Amino acid sequence: MGFTSKLTSAWATNNSALCVGLDPDISKLPAHLKADPLGIQKFCIDIVDATADTVCAFKPQIAYFAAVGAEAQLQAVCDHIRTQHPHIVLILDAKRGDIGDTATLYAREAFERYQADAVTVNPYLGTDSLEPFLRTPDKGTIVLCRTSNPGSAEFQSQLINNEPLYKVIARTAATKWNTIGDCALVVGATYPTELAEVRSIVGDMPLLVPGIGAQGGDIQAAVTAGRTANGTGLIINSSRAVLYTSNGTDFAQAARTVALTTRDAIRKFSN
Amino acid sequence: MGFTSKLTSAWATNNSALCVGLDPDISKLPAHLKADPLGIQKFCIDIVDATADTVCAFKPQIAYFAAVGAEAQLQAVCDHIRTQHPHIVLILDAKRGDIGDTATLYAREAFERYQADAVTVNPYLGTDSLEPFLRTPDKGTIVLCRTSNPGSAEFQSQLINNEPLYKVIARTAATKWNTIGDCALVVGATYPTELAEVRSIVGDMPLLVPGIGAQGGDIQAAVTAGRTANGTGLIINSSRAVLYTSNGTDFAQAARTVALTTRDAIRKFSN
Repeated sequence: MGFTSKLTSAWATNNSALCVGLDPDISKLPAHLKADPLGIQKFCIDIVDATADTVCAFKPQIAYFAAVGAEAQLQAVCDHIRTQHPHIVLILDAKRGDIGDTATLYAREAFERYQADAVTVNPYLGTDSLEPFLRTPDKGTIVLCRTSNPGSAEFQSQLINNEPLYKVIARTAATKWNTIGDCALVVGATYPTELAEVRSIVGDMPLLVPGIGAQGGDIQAAVTAGRTANGTGLIINSSRAVLYTSNGTDFAQAARTVALTTRDAIRKFSN
Repeated sequence: MGFTSKLTSAWATNNSALCVGLDPDISKLPAHLKADPLGIQKFCIDIVDATADTVCAFKPQIAYFAAVGAEAQLQAVCDHIRTQHPHIVLILDAKRGDIGDTATLYAREAFERYQADAVTVNPYLGTDSLEPFLRTPDKGTIVLCRTSNPGSAEFQSQLINNEPLYKVIARTAATKWNTIGDCALVVGATYPTELAEVRSIVGDMPLLVPGIGAQGGDIQAAVTAGRTANGTGLIINSSRAVLYTSNGTDFAQAARTVALTTRDAIRKFSN
């Protein structure tokens, strides 16, 4: 099953557009896991198991694992998601971007080593740098368009023929990159106006929307701006706000409570 | 010692602007190393030892290691370069780019885990995404500007107020990102006209120039276009053309021969 089909199925099965981002910051882990050599892995797996029926996707952020040499733990977390929750979409957040031969290796990292359903990528190097991802059957290529950070306008909103760069990216995605139907875009919840503009360009293409919760994006504004005509099309990510509600032994149950509340808030504005 | 100082010293000590890119493609390794579990590491270390007196820098490309789960081998290669050839600049080619907190972790990956002197990064997310790299003392931040691939013009040459995006990036690097003096840019040897334009904007800032050799960039054109007034300023990368001249047991000696020829060709046009 392809990325978009699997996502559509996960949206329906769990009636949720929530994505839980797995950003395991060791300094924020519960005390009993901080000193555990496999603490990152155990933390993520407990979060996954506690929230799997509340989400459409999980999104491990590879930098949190790479900074501390925990690739084996990332592999274990990905394996757990795929085997224990096979209907949930697994997105590797890696924001890769490189020229042809190297991009092929990054595609192998995401799709073979970690067996992700989709990976985030950076468009700065152009279409040829994205092709190794786009041409991989059944895998999703989620291209940065308008990111959630405060400085994202600096280059992404520069005008090209009176149109900001992020809209050029969105149109290129819709017309050129989505031939297989498994392309998606990243647009931050922190920019609902831009989210609505991108939605108007890309039709029903899935949009990965980070920035609610700790980054301050408003759920109602994001969902209203980004949803498709039938009230879907969104992967609304929350990481820190879900992960670090409690740093006691009840962290997973506390995460579930926030995930449920967030899922319901998203659901309320989805139709 | 800071990145630019170390680079300046390496240019002078070895009288070389050559950078050997370490892209260990298992399918191209000599037969006796292909089946060796540590083949990547041994291959890179032998190349490093055979060429260290001919270069100013080594540039391991992390994707080649990440695709096959060989981070420990990358760490061993980096350790070897730093301990056995401490005057040679170590550039981690990773092209990272992410928002603040995550960028901080990628900086930790490059500068603490692999102890690189510099890392390549992608500017699409804006200045705030580069700050964790730029503010790390003594470390180099090498920002993608005009990349060497065939499709790099697609977005990088889009006109913003009649100026292509790569020139906006170059000016931003010169005026805003280089306050510590350890910022550099990537400009492909395959685009000598653009290389000359970037040089005219950034003064003496180091430019990492991939694209000679297998990618077809011409050494004379690149060096003539990119050199500073005093004939330096360039890190001219060659990967495949140096690494895969022989796939026999003489591969390192063969690499040395190509490295010497390439170094001399660069030197010839540097003054």
